[in-house]
Amino acid sequence: MADALYQELADRIGNLIRGGTFASGSRLPSVRRLSREQNVSVTTVLEAYGRLEGLGIIESRPRSGYFVCPPKVVNGQLPRPAAAPKRPVAVRSPEIFQAVMEAATDPGIVPFGAAVPGDETIPAKRLTSIASSLARRLGPGVYQYSMVPGRHELRAAVSRRLLSAGVQVTPDEIIATQGASEALALALRATTRRGDVIAVEAPTYFGILHLARDMGLEVLEVPMDASEGMDLNALEELSGRHPIKACVVQPVFQNPVGSRMSDTAKQRLAEIARQRDFAIIEDDLYGELGHSGTRPMAVAHYDTDGRVLLCGSVSKCIAPGLRIGWIVPGRYLDQVKRLKTTHSLANPTLSELVVAEYFRSGAAERQLRRISSLFAAQCARMREAVLREFPEGTRVNQPRGGFVIWVEMPEGYDAEKLAAEALQQGIGLIPGTIFSASCRLQNCLRLSCGSRWDERSEHAVRTLGRLASHCRVDDPA
Amino acid sequence: MADALYQELADRIGNLIRGGTFASGSRLPSVRRLSREQNVSVTTVLEAYGRLEGLGIIESRPRSGYFVCPPKVVNGQLPRPAAAPKRPVAVRSPEIFQAVMEAATDPGIVPFGAAVPGDETIPAKRLTSIASSLARRLGPGVYQYSMVPGRHELRAAVSRRLLSAGVQVTPDEIIATQGASEALALALRATTRRGDVIAVEAPTYFGILHLARDMGLEVLEVPMDASEGMDLNALEELSGRHPIKACVVQPVFQNPVGSRMSDTAKQRLAEIARQRDFAIIEDDLYGELGHSGTRPMAVAHYDTDGRVLLCGSVSKCIAPGLRIGWIVPGRYLDQVKRLKTTHSLANPTLSELVVAEYFRSGAAERQLRRISSLFAAQCARMREAVLREFPEGTRVNQPRGGFVIWVEMPEGYDAEKLAAEALQQGIGLIPGTIFSASCRLQNCLRLSCGSRWDERSEHAVRTLGRLASHCRVDDPA
Repeated sequence: MADALYQELADRIGNLIRGGTFASGSRLPSVRRLSREQNVSVTTVLEAYGRLEGLGIIESRPRSGYFVCPPKVVNGQLPRPAAAPKRPVAVRSPEIFQAVMEAATDPGIVPFGAAVPGDETIPAKRLTSIASSLARRLGPGVYQYSMVPGRHELRAAVSRRLLSAGVQVTPDEIIATQGASEALALALRATTRRGDVIAVEAPTYFGILHLARDMGLEVLEVPMDASEGMDLNALEELSGRHPIKACVVQPVFQNPVGSRMSDTAKQRLAEIARQRDFAIIEDDLYGELGHSGTRPMAVAHYDTDGRVLLCGSVSKCIAPGLRIGWIVPGRYLDQVKRLKTTHSLANPTLSELVVAEYFRSGAAERQLRRISSLFAAQCARMREAVLREFPEGTRVNQPRGGFVIWVEMPEGYDAEKLAAEALQQGIGLIPGTIFSASCRLQNCLRLSCGSRWDERSEHAVRTLGRLASHCRVDDPA
Repeated sequence: MADALYQELADRIGNLIRGGTFASGSRLPSVRRLSREQNVSVTTVLEAYGRLEGLGIIESRPRSGYFVCPPKVVNGQLPRPAAAPKRPVAVRSPEIFQAVMEAATDPGIVPFGAAVPGDETIPAKRLTSIASSLARRLGPGVYQYSMVPGRHELRAAVSRRLLSAGVQVTPDEIIATQGASEALALALRATTRRGDVIAVEAPTYFGILHLARDMGLEVLEVPMDASEGMDLNALEELSGRHPIKACVVQPVFQNPVGSRMSDTAKQRLAEIARQRDFAIIEDDLYGELGHSGTRPMAVAHYDTDGRVLLCGSVSKCIAPGLRIGWIVPGRYLDQVKRLKTTHSLANPTLSELVVAEYFRSGAAERQLRRISSLFAAQCARMREAVLREFPEGTRVNQPRGGFVIWVEMPEGYDAEKLAAEALQQGIGLIPGTIFSASCRLQNCLRLSCGSRWDERSEHAVRTLGRLASHCRVDDPA
């Protein structure tokens, strides 16, 4: 009977995991809580968890509890590092870009395009309640200018949050920005001049490429490993041959490949930057969205002489529409202050105060646990669906955080054609060429998994798979 | 008896005008309303108004009612046009800038520095009530990305408002920005490249100078008349000798001199731009804050081939902390869209929706009437106080809109020294050198009249006058 009971419980939890209720990497209810909720003994729960652990479905971590293991890769391989030109290039931008971006927030389009978190991930009620209470309490103050460097409350809250990434800075070393976009733009302006060369990941977030083009910078593309991140041997070799001024990197949960650099690699990156005397622009946008629930160290943790400019925001983990980000510019503090004053003067004041209070209240921890699990589950579903529906030989990454996945179709497939045809069918996606300064990665694409997975999503991936099979480089347009 | 009655009423209103209740340029209560409120006959009111009109204190305007006349200049002359180098120069920035800006929002400092509207001008309760209601109705939608070009509701509201400036554009021709600062930055980026020359007013808003320096532009300073605005003969001559790419101009209620170009001048400016083939970046930040209650035409009204980029915001007339502005970029529409996507991606969504609803509700008209009168009265008070307290020979402009005044001390006085000493005494102000690309205008300064005029203000001007008398170029520091 007891035997039947723990087996039954194990089955039930196993089904919830397969069904996505408990996502890959997420924490399971504590033994005590499950015993209470299911009205069974602690021993029964321990036996059920033990069985699932034996099957490799969950794992126990000392002093942390039980976690869902990542799914095994049964029918796919990780995408391969992208080939990249071994010299700096001026940035080109594919023609399809504007159409893809305009579809990004069209509610009629299946939202696999821009990396937008779904409505259900946004703690709207809580944010509104904080905003109302602040506006009542502070009156016109919440509508006045919040001049550079931004409200102290926000900078203090950010300095507390950054402790978990191993970064110890005072509020005075932080400048509030309008999202990470502005932080990245300020970082590039502070560290480079027209004609300079910067190193970027290949593939990299396309916003960096557009900024570089607009500022007249050349980019050196450094290959990425879908699991380990930027190839540091390549960076070392390339930076020896070309004088780079800054290296833009997303060390953890990289967009678009979802990789995570090891701590050793981060330390080595900081060391290379010191030797070659370049700045590191660290884009930490997804750092708090690790699928396993852990918050990795930032490269800034290994910085010894203020050459890392750490950029972050709440856009992917609380709400994008608040437009609140930050930059910790190290030795570039005064320059970034001056540039921020020049280019945008001030931030949305109420947003700054709302984020400060949201952090202060402790709500952010719960929010991050909740949505990291959600994103992990949605990425897993997307990955499975793509491997099932796309042409044979398609590779898909296994993101370790964030909510995008990177798809590498076999050579000869053309993701720009696919994106154009998908748009016709009401489905958004971003072709790989947009993530490449040299418009390579033609057979790759990024799919956002920020929104709720449902019937429409399943259907859309089926449609994409069908369309993909006809989208080859040689096919007539 | 009736005689005594209308004389008494005239005296009472005269006192209210001198006391600042009815500001220079503001509309007086209608005859009917005053008759009702004061419980006197319509004839008595007409006679009282007639007497005040005879004294030159008020004026009647056909079909509009009675208005307070501007005060006569009794003890002061307008500042003279600034001398300016007749060739393009690289922008220099005085060292004092950062200190002056940092004091700008320090509540302990008398706020004559940055052009910040006072708390009492901000319709905080109304904005909060609109925000709460939108957040309840739209849920997470108000926290999602508002991607380029911004929410349709806002762009539609702006297109309706621009009708009063003679500008007829569809919402699709408008791009929402983060304040006018971003609009100006986008306009400069869309029309120039590093090394180009732009024409600016002398003096001009310092933000333009900092942007120009940062973008590697040279500036050609065109003298200003404190009443009529940019000297178009000078512009014509200078633009014939130097190839300028864009001319940045605040045609109405210019910051810092408060001038207003005539419609003929605006038309001529548009014509010069066509002939010399340069763009006009029209900064319309104060266009709705005319002290006489009228809303002048924009230069964009006279644009025939899309070369005017019209920039505006709600920062000075509703609330700066919302960070909502706009740009109507004419023929540069696609470029500005691309640049906005690259440099800041999105705007604060709730702010966009709040401004749209505030405009739609009709509250903006009442708000503008209310604060224009307030600003007119505060400028008049400041002007009087400065003429009374500052060294003999000091000239003060008579702004026709907005809320800053421009002070020209006699030659040999040093406003940077004054600003530094004033800061020590807890008083903010901005020295003239900050408004000049070539750090001229050393004997000039700008005083903001955005905040409530009170005892502290009176005292602060007295202190400034005393300090000024010792701040001469030759004095040892």
